[in-house]
Amino acid sequence: MFGTDELCSLRWDPVSEKVEVIDQTLLPHTLRWCHLDSLEAFCHAISTMQVRGAPLIGITAAFGLAHALSQDASDENLAGAAATLLATRPTAVNLRWALQEVSVAVRNLAPPERARAALDKARALREEDIANCERIGDNGLQLLRTLGSGDSLNIMTHCNAGWLAAIQWGTALAPIYKAHASGMPVHVWVSETRPRNQGTNLTAWELQRAGVPCTIVADNSCGQLMRQGRVDCVIVGSDRTAANGDVCNKVGTYLKALAAQANGIPFYVALPESTIDWDCPGGEQIPIEERDVAEVLSIAGLDAGGELREVNLAAAHSQALNPAFDVTPAALVKALVTEHGNFNASEEGLRKLRAAMNGA
Amino acid sequence: MFGTDELCSLRWDPVSEKVEVIDQTLLPHTLRWCHLDSLEAFCHAISTMQVRGAPLIGITAAFGLAHALSQDASDENLAGAAATLLATRPTAVNLRWALQEVSVAVRNLAPPERARAALDKARALREEDIANCERIGDNGLQLLRTLGSGDSLNIMTHCNAGWLAAIQWGTALAPIYKAHASGMPVHVWVSETRPRNQGTNLTAWELQRAGVPCTIVADNSCGQLMRQGRVDCVIVGSDRTAANGDVCNKVGTYLKALAAQANGIPFYVALPESTIDWDCPGGEQIPIEERDVAEVLSIAGLDAGGELREVNLAAAHSQALNPAFDVTPAALVKALVTEHGNFNASEEGLRKLRAAMNGA
Repeated sequence: MFGTDELCSLRWDPVSEKVEVIDQTLLPHTLRWCHLDSLEAFCHAISTMQVRGAPLIGITAAFGLAHALSQDASDENLAGAAATLLATRPTAVNLRWALQEVSVAVRNLAPPERARAALDKARALREEDIANCERIGDNGLQLLRTLGSGDSLNIMTHCNAGWLAAIQWGTALAPIYKAHASGMPVHVWVSETRPRNQGTNLTAWELQRAGVPCTIVADNSCGQLMRQGRVDCVIVGSDRTAANGDVCNKVGTYLKALAAQANGIPFYVALPESTIDWDCPGGEQIPIEERDVAEVLSIAGLDAGGELREVNLAAAHSQALNPAFDVTPAALVKALVTEHGNFNASEEGLRKLRAAMNGA
Repeated sequence: MFGTDELCSLRWDPVSEKVEVIDQTLLPHTLRWCHLDSLEAFCHAISTMQVRGAPLIGITAAFGLAHALSQDASDENLAGAAATLLATRPTAVNLRWALQEVSVAVRNLAPPERARAALDKARALREEDIANCERIGDNGLQLLRTLGSGDSLNIMTHCNAGWLAAIQWGTALAPIYKAHASGMPVHVWVSETRPRNQGTNLTAWELQRAGVPCTIVADNSCGQLMRQGRVDCVIVGSDRTAANGDVCNKVGTYLKALAAQANGIPFYVALPESTIDWDCPGGEQIPIEERDVAEVLSIAGLDAGGELREVNLAAAHSQALNPAFDVTPAALVKALVTEHGNFNASEEGLRKLRAAMNGA
């Protein structure tokens, strides 16, 4: 079940040659797979966040570009479709990277060969992402095995860094799935992750689907649970990692890291090398995106009739602010868990990681 | 405007001799005053949380007991009505205290004198609460004046400890209202306070009503705002204060205290002496109430048609946990702001506070 298309966010059917993705905007209430069968459908899926999570966005775009070339393999369409896909989420680093990978793979080929080569590249990127996440899972599992726990190991996570954000396994959740698959009893504290509630909507849903016991808590509860000795470790993902080991991740991560340190609980960050920004010396250089305040002032859920409905939480004309990320200083991070092994969150640790990458 | 019935949660009309309270379950969307004109109405207001906040609950109950005695001043009804009111929120310390105060004031009187004496006592408790909160405001203002700030002073608060929780002024918000009334430019960061969203529903609403600039943020954002230097101090209330200065308050308070310490920002707790539990040596002795998980798994808001509607946030059969409070260790608290002055959060500070109480 793990490492198969049962627990997967993007499927490629080799018979029909079609791409299907889970429409994540409907989770956790409805599981709907969408066939993406036009450039418009790929763009729509990315821009409306039917797919989200850096790795998944990139690979969806790669398949989208391959699809566009199957319709028209001219230089003009290659450039135009890539630009159209890139515009769907202009700040997503993986989106640009994946489109570049496909473009480089096909641009020197004759047009009739391009569609097949692009598809092969997209499929290879997908396989590579799955393999990297599985390695992160194996490496993180080594750390989990070092944590003594009487009963079930209680692991806290934040936001969603599971197979809904990648293709299979995920990053922060990969070690948890590996532990569960190995028979180690685990239980996950899922912080709801206001304002967008990715914890409740995505992480709790995907853990339940994989049969991993989990409990949703308000973000505010996370410190208290640690004080009460109910948390053995924290594992989160990273949106961007600086060269000194500072980690920029979903807002609220920093508060959990502070509480973990205050209570002597290891705080791990799981990340693929693609999130490391080698040109960024430290977290203070990372700009913090401020998103639409509607995410704070309203929320969607199922009403009594089973309809998905948006409700306003605040008084009319309320002011709000919505920073989407925060920076956790490297000193609060016990280890960086990567596909190349586990490293200290420090300049020296990152140098060793780079050496491991180059040696690999 | 401050210190008047304009910004007040419970009004007493000396002409009609009627009690009116704001129905806080309808905030922030609708302001409705409810006449409480039967014992049932008083009990309903407390048990359904139309009124909440320790001081307000106590004073509402005191007026409720006075009303019951105006209908039937017998010993039986005195005991019966007090028991009925106490059962509305069995764990509320102030509720028990206020009922006791009224009972003691009337029990040795002849029945025909009891109703008037009970009403006088309830009105006196109300005036005393207002005066205590105003003193907290004046004492807290002294601390705010010591904080250098170029522009507006940026104060963060959590949950609701304003005039909706007391009668007028409030506790944590009293210094802010005093600052605003004195012409000091202030701006308040209101953390929404999941799961019940008292920040969004109550604090932002009452600050706006008082003309104090404020901005709602997700609880998760509070650490990041401190890291960015956008917070000059934090002020919160206390539900229960231990004899060593540990503070039990709405869940999420502890995370803000950790972030304040990590960023060199003063963290103040404003509280009336009635919240101090002299028999409790430290925070680890305070049991943490776990409330209905429905508060985490669903939420109410206004739908597009302007109807208040509850929506489910999580997948069916999700597990959740809802600890309602957390404990902030005294070492993280810069000062306790009380009606008797400002004190260190430590055993020694509490001893000085006790001396000030006894000397007063």
